[in-house]
Amino acid sequence: MFREKRELRIPGPTPVPPQALRALSRPLMGHRTEEFSSILMRTTERLKRILGTKADVYTFASSGTGAMEAAVANTVSASDKVIVVVGGKFGERWSELCRAFGAEVEEIVVEPGKAVDPAAVEQALKAAPETRAVFITQNETSTGVEHDVESVARIVRDTDALLIVDAVSSLGAIEMRMDDWGVDIVAAGSQKALMLPPGLAVIGVSEKAWSVIEKCRSPRYYFDLIACRKNMDKETTPFTPAVSMFYALDQTTAMIEEEGLENVYRRHQDMRDMIRAAARATGLELFASDEVASRTITAIRGDSTFDVEKLRKRLATVYNIEVAGGQSELKGVIFRIGHMGYMDRIDMVSTWAAVELALNDLGRPIEIGAGVKAAMEVMSKCEF
Amino acid sequence: MFREKRELRIPGPTPVPPQALRALSRPLMGHRTEEFSSILMRTTERLKRILGTKADVYTFASSGTGAMEAAVANTVSASDKVIVVVGGKFGERWSELCRAFGAEVEEIVVEPGKAVDPAAVEQALKAAPETRAVFITQNETSTGVEHDVESVARIVRDTDALLIVDAVSSLGAIEMRMDDWGVDIVAAGSQKALMLPPGLAVIGVSEKAWSVIEKCRSPRYYFDLIACRKNMDKETTPFTPAVSMFYALDQTTAMIEEEGLENVYRRHQDMRDMIRAAARATGLELFASDEVASRTITAIRGDSTFDVEKLRKRLATVYNIEVAGGQSELKGVIFRIGHMGYMDRIDMVSTWAAVELALNDLGRPIEIGAGVKAAMEVMSKCEF
Repeated sequence: MFREKRELRIPGPTPVPPQALRALSRPLMGHRTEEFSSILMRTTERLKRILGTKADVYTFASSGTGAMEAAVANTVSASDKVIVVVGGKFGERWSELCRAFGAEVEEIVVEPGKAVDPAAVEQALKAAPETRAVFITQNETSTGVEHDVESVARIVRDTDALLIVDAVSSLGAIEMRMDDWGVDIVAAGSQKALMLPPGLAVIGVSEKAWSVIEKCRSPRYYFDLIACRKNMDKETTPFTPAVSMFYALDQTTAMIEEEGLENVYRRHQDMRDMIRAAARATGLELFASDEVASRTITAIRGDSTFDVEKLRKRLATVYNIEVAGGQSELKGVIFRIGHMGYMDRIDMVSTWAAVELALNDLGRPIEIGAGVKAAMEVMSKCEF
Repeated sequence: MFREKRELRIPGPTPVPPQALRALSRPLMGHRTEEFSSILMRTTERLKRILGTKADVYTFASSGTGAMEAAVANTVSASDKVIVVVGGKFGERWSELCRAFGAEVEEIVVEPGKAVDPAAVEQALKAAPETRAVFITQNETSTGVEHDVESVARIVRDTDALLIVDAVSSLGAIEMRMDDWGVDIVAAGSQKALMLPPGLAVIGVSEKAWSVIEKCRSPRYYFDLIACRKNMDKETTPFTPAVSMFYALDQTTAMIEEEGLENVYRRHQDMRDMIRAAARATGLELFASDEVASRTITAIRGDSTFDVEKLRKRLATVYNIEVAGGQSELKGVIFRIGHMGYMDRIDMVSTWAAVELALNDLGRPIEIGAGVKAAMEVMSKCEF
């Protein structure tokens, strides 16, 4: 088996395209040079288009959680009231971060597999008009559910609260329109649909957010957004940026522009639809319902006919395809297929074929090819 | 001119060896796999040897400043008293970080170009026995000065205070013996003598430090050391690690082991001695005196016969050699030649030849070759 040909169908790291891998091996340059500044400014402009904003976008040398910490540390002071939508592990991460910074957290707990009802946010905000910020996860990776950021933004934008969105596993795959929707802060990471290795975090910051950031009393230094702004005015960064990652970002953002954002979004939606059709035709149960199903990751329930952890192991060791398991209380209950970033519709066919064969290997009675056929039927109707 | 052949003689990013550049372009793997764990554990063991410790070593996806923030955020609570040795920009960074976290900072200000007198630390500690920690910079990159960490450690180790060392521009080039000397926390970065791109930070943590960390009340999440410890017990990291950087770290730490730490240290010392001899023979003034001169970066004063910023520009554009300027009040006063990481003694000859030729181009009267000869004479006596 070709070890390096492993197909990553996990929610990050995702496959990095060859031109980006090659870019990573380019010799280093000084980061306080005109040449680096021009890469920084060019990639930042492209990130703005992906975030749907004309406001400010910065990066950190960190994983996506670093951008999430920046969002909290720059807006939430001790004792501030915040509302957090919690529908899984990454919603919980917002709560943990806000609590680490001393916030009083009101959680809107959503059943795993469901999306938040925007009316619940409206109600919570009415009950606590002093709320500093509402935190939400655009794509809850742990359950394969999308929360409707646009609808929630429509509610939050008319209040004093900020709307802060974790788009780590959605940016570059699922539409984000910061300015049009009225989103104040978006945090994202490199190793998902941006098609890079882990190690670069992205944050978008609205005008409304700055008024809060300037008054925020929480300690921060490495993730200080005011330092980012000051340095970006001079086309540089406060601390040494991850130079090699920018070489690769230059490649992947150009690829996204060439494909066109609308096409990128449609490709992810189609991959989702193919996997869901295939799972159903194989007689497996989808964890999230159609209306809220993630376009970047599909969670599928195990059942009494097979063991999800054994399935994952067989997929990895025999078919060279890595899929994710469930986290925390969902461990052993679900497995998750990532379909984000550098992959195409046709790859879903081979991915599902491997799932079918592995299930067959494990002795589960299945009709070989039924899921693959369903995926192909969906694909036959895709426009691309 | 070959643009990619630029020789980085700045204090980071430094040249990355070809085998590490190649490693960066290796396809990604999942980070929750046995294969990644084995890279993580192997490189961590090697980093422990470089840090001179059997205690705990962790990494962050961040630049070196991230490890510095981790050192502060995990040990310093609001209103804690700390002592900071400030002999330049990176000493100031410790002060800024400690103040950001609400500490009461007592600075021991050292004249730029001089090293701290350990007796001053002893006195300050006696005057304030409640001091939580002493912060020092092993190698002050902004002035090209080494502070004597071993001597300071001898004083601090017998008190309740922690000794916290910025070794960003020294680790892997200048000796560090955490356990033998009694250093509690060491913060370092990847893009200096560890021969990697920016984006990976390293932190070493002593037993004594843990007792403070466990009681520390400062908010932290991404840089939380307790989360690092919990996850390292399971051979993993709290957040997605910079997988590609570990591929490269695996290469560069193996290179350091192959050369042998003592040889690595001697190589850096020899490169320093060659540059200093060359500068003197060219009639230039060294910013730091011999006893405290950095083994990774040499600061050289400009004078009335040439403009340092014009010299830097000429070196970069004509000779393809990047050197650093002075920072803040030293801008225009000094230029700095980095000699750290993936470079050898013989490279100092060409580096200095370029300096001589550029000075000559700028109309400064010099005897061409005098500095190069002096460097070669030093090299002729080096053992390697």
